[in-house]
Amino acid sequence: MTNAYVVGVDFGTLSGRAVVVRVSDGAELASAVHPYEHAVVEDRLPATGAKLPPDWALQMPSDWVEVLRTAVPAAVRASGVDPAEVIGIGTDFTACTVLPTTVDGTPLCALPSFRDRPHAYPKLWKHHSAQPHADRINALAAARGEKWLARYGGRISSEWEFAKALQVLEDDPEVYAATERWVEAADWIVWQLCGRYLRNACTAGYKGIYQDGAYPSPAYLAELNPGFASFVTDKLEHEIGQLGALAGGLTAAASEWTGLPEGIAVCVGNVDAHVTAPAAQATQPGQMLMVMGTSTCHVMNSDRLGEVPGMCGVVDGGIVPGLYGYEAGQSGVGDIFAWHVDNFVPPSYVSAAAAEGVGIHDYLTSLAAAQAVGEHGLVALDWHGGNRSVLVDHELSGVLVGATLATRAEDVYRALLEATAFGTRTIVEAFESSGVPVSELVVAGGLLRNAFLMQLYADVCRRPLSVIGSEQGPALGSAIHAAVAAGAYPDVHAAAAAMGKVERAVYVPDEKRATAYDALYEEYRRLHDHFGRGGNDVLHRLRDIRRTAVAGSKSKEDA
Amino acid sequence: MTNAYVVGVDFGTLSGRAVVVRVSDGAELASAVHPYEHAVVEDRLPATGAKLPPDWALQMPSDWVEVLRTAVPAAVRASGVDPAEVIGIGTDFTACTVLPTTVDGTPLCALPSFRDRPHAYPKLWKHHSAQPHADRINALAAARGEKWLARYGGRISSEWEFAKALQVLEDDPEVYAATERWVEAADWIVWQLCGRYLRNACTAGYKGIYQDGAYPSPAYLAELNPGFASFVTDKLEHEIGQLGALAGGLTAAASEWTGLPEGIAVCVGNVDAHVTAPAAQATQPGQMLMVMGTSTCHVMNSDRLGEVPGMCGVVDGGIVPGLYGYEAGQSGVGDIFAWHVDNFVPPSYVSAAAAEGVGIHDYLTSLAAAQAVGEHGLVALDWHGGNRSVLVDHELSGVLVGATLATRAEDVYRALLEATAFGTRTIVEAFESSGVPVSELVVAGGLLRNAFLMQLYADVCRRPLSVIGSEQGPALGSAIHAAVAAGAYPDVHAAAAAMGKVERAVYVPDEKRATAYDALYEEYRRLHDHFGRGGNDVLHRLRDIRRTAVAGSKSKEDA
Repeated sequence: MTNAYVVGVDFGTLSGRAVVVRVSDGAELASAVHPYEHAVVEDRLPATGAKLPPDWALQMPSDWVEVLRTAVPAAVRASGVDPAEVIGIGTDFTACTVLPTTVDGTPLCALPSFRDRPHAYPKLWKHHSAQPHADRINALAAARGEKWLARYGGRISSEWEFAKALQVLEDDPEVYAATERWVEAADWIVWQLCGRYLRNACTAGYKGIYQDGAYPSPAYLAELNPGFASFVTDKLEHEIGQLGALAGGLTAAASEWTGLPEGIAVCVGNVDAHVTAPAAQATQPGQMLMVMGTSTCHVMNSDRLGEVPGMCGVVDGGIVPGLYGYEAGQSGVGDIFAWHVDNFVPPSYVSAAAAEGVGIHDYLTSLAAAQAVGEHGLVALDWHGGNRSVLVDHELSGVLVGATLATRAEDVYRALLEATAFGTRTIVEAFESSGVPVSELVVAGGLLRNAFLMQLYADVCRRPLSVIGSEQGPALGSAIHAAVAAGAYPDVHAAAAAMGKVERAVYVPDEKRATAYDALYEEYRRLHDHFGRGGNDVLHRLRDIRRTAVAGSKSKEDA
Repeated sequence: MTNAYVVGVDFGTLSGRAVVVRVSDGAELASAVHPYEHAVVEDRLPATGAKLPPDWALQMPSDWVEVLRTAVPAAVRASGVDPAEVIGIGTDFTACTVLPTTVDGTPLCALPSFRDRPHAYPKLWKHHSAQPHADRINALAAARGEKWLARYGGRISSEWEFAKALQVLEDDPEVYAATERWVEAADWIVWQLCGRYLRNACTAGYKGIYQDGAYPSPAYLAELNPGFASFVTDKLEHEIGQLGALAGGLTAAASEWTGLPEGIAVCVGNVDAHVTAPAAQATQPGQMLMVMGTSTCHVMNSDRLGEVPGMCGVVDGGIVPGLYGYEAGQSGVGDIFAWHVDNFVPPSYVSAAAAEGVGIHDYLTSLAAAQAVGEHGLVALDWHGGNRSVLVDHELSGVLVGATLATRAEDVYRALLEATAFGTRTIVEAFESSGVPVSELVVAGGLLRNAFLMQLYADVCRRPLSVIGSEQGPALGSAIHAAVAAGAYPDVHAAAAAMGKVERAVYVPDEKRATAYDALYEEYRRLHDHFGRGGNDVLHRLRDIRRTAVAGSKSKEDA
């Protein structure tokens, strides 16, 4: 096995990345990135130039295939590996990114008769205009007492398969009628590679409401819309593929795109965050992987099934086969820090940072790090992008309490860092109080570069923090899954042990700081419950006031 | 009377300003400013270089006299007026600025034996280290049910005469023992001009707890500290002078300083905000003058005596003789806007403002003014410098609610402008619900240059806003009082009618905007009561946490 390699391909929001990995030890030999030509289609449909409505986000399937044709061979070339030594390929995707296809997997948007129809294109995860449909899905499920609802923390997202499909049905019935399969991009790309359509257990569960072997019932769907009654049977339901399983052999066409040998193992599809768990050796029960970037995604396996309030979902085999996979999320993390840096840092700081030759984030961090816990006198709520877990409320917004005339940019910055750590602790506590223990936090993602932030999380959460040893976690995770699919390891745990990379307990909580943070966390929780659980519903009312104000000034402009 | 003139002198925090005014119509012919050589003594005592403790703020009496010697003659020269035509001089001062003197008015700090003693120097209004003494004054008054306490909204300030005197007694008993008179600077300067000591009705009432002809009782004072029992009888109590009354004739020495004729009328002392009321023709019951600068001071006459919660004080004849004078205050207004501009506005805005050739305040205002009411989705509490009226709580701090990733610097700026307007409305409503009607708002001070802010106040308060017609309101007000003291007018109202300057109803509320602001004001009040009245005492706890944190890191540094 010394000379066996696998390729992992991570399909992100703006580009795809391929990495060549040695099967024996997970060594990452080379990688290559290919940016999507059309990136995210939010403004106008490329085919016609037609303007899209607000909150739309589409992608082009041809851009994804181009990653297979360019990034994969480029990575293999750069690695110096003989393509004949590559024994498998694995992929992960953003989710829920979903598209309508014919029965053979042809995207409807690729048909001349539908190329001018926005609903014929893949809807990217951040296509948010199906919110009214999601609201109806949730209200009806709650009213009918659908038992799957609790598996999603009580709320189905507008980003997921059902809301987006219902939007197609109601907004463009012809596209809906022509849709023979409603396919996750994660599965579509695997279909392109091996010619076989399987719904991976991860997206089927988390995004497709597949629980205990069943989807939402026709009776429920009919009550949403009579035309939706047979959505599952006609367009959705299909064979499930377990994560790490073999989907099929690489087709001749895909072999030509990638330059890899025909017939090598193609792994079942996967999702970026979930696929990272083995890359960080975080596949055992209680190891919570946090992928920290603009937002944070928490994934964790457990041998216990619990209904954790506000989690994104719990799916049997959703991360690795045989365990319950939990997902939770914080809507805003790195993007809140960036927002502050971009909008609320004065020129003198920008010059000082430049003079020191450091970035603004580093500069603010060094100022903030010089403070004692609580010295800034602030507490913030990290809801600038809404709150996913544990409140599941995208209409919430940020709160900052305690500002004085002595408050400076680094004080607010630190308060925002802390707020996201308090948000994480809130999630961890929700798991534990629902009977799902959390033993360790493992961090992946861009934010782990900030050591002060990492220590802060360890202190606030009173848990050791381990750190992934790779900068391309999802692609490495896909490669690990490919090795399992190729039969090089008996299961994902074994492959993770050999190929995953983690440094354990890089950050350990400091008792004195942790105690000081406890007092601030108590204030956070009090504010959290007051503003998030109905004590004062001002954040929702401010949204309404804002919408009314914007609508009023728009209608005045139009008049 | 065509050729009669008066001189008004305004003693501010950093400088004194003299203005020469025509008695017949209030025309301001010329003015001159003299900055105090020692400005505010906060760091080291000039006489010895000794370090002062934190929160100390002293001044030098010689600096004040220098204003009489330089600014007054300079203004007269610049006016072209023959000094022989000047019939009176009036003054106003910061308050409570107070000093220990001998029985003849010599400041203790001018005696060689006391020049090295910080407590021998005048304590400027913003000397804040007597807070523990003020706390005891308030606690004891509340416990004993002293009826004067309600006249001050339930709280005596650490800035006032009793707290500062108690601090001298307890911290430097020798200085206290040598103090024969405890004199307001407002009265000391008049004493220098005419050789007669009178306690003006304004500071005696607002700062000296003189109510219904009496001061706090010896029994009360003894309970504070046995050595304080005879403070009133030994050092404080003295003849009261009504505002606008003649204190005496200009002495030969003062004539030499000022270049004005010996024997002309010297008016009883006054305070900067209060003296401005006639300058803005705001002396009738219900006309609330708002002096809007870094903070806002509200003064208003009424024919009704009410106990308004959180006001700074109500004093019979405290603004004009014969009416009850009310004072209220907002701790932070312009300084909150400046804090935001100095600390939370990014370089791109600073460059854009420079490119347009406008200041940052103007630039942010123009962006904010383009929004519809409520469009920013924010509500703020304007407590960055604490809250004077109506909560009387300096340990409060600022709150900002509703921030999203789309929030920009101009949004926060506008929310802060609005918060101060909501603070004003809260004060106006406190007056009205205590049976003291407010009919009109009249604005003086630097912030009236911001027309958008003025309109906002009119809309939020649903009241027309009148605007003073002078840029040197206090000095003009002092001149008006001098004209009354000189007998040119029968009373302050008559002099104000002839010499004051106001434009009535420059800003009138817009019904549509006012209605939209009502909804935001309702949110402000809900947050105000929650964070200010015990619903969640987080702001106080954050102060405590902060103090502990700072003390901890200090002691670590010292160790």
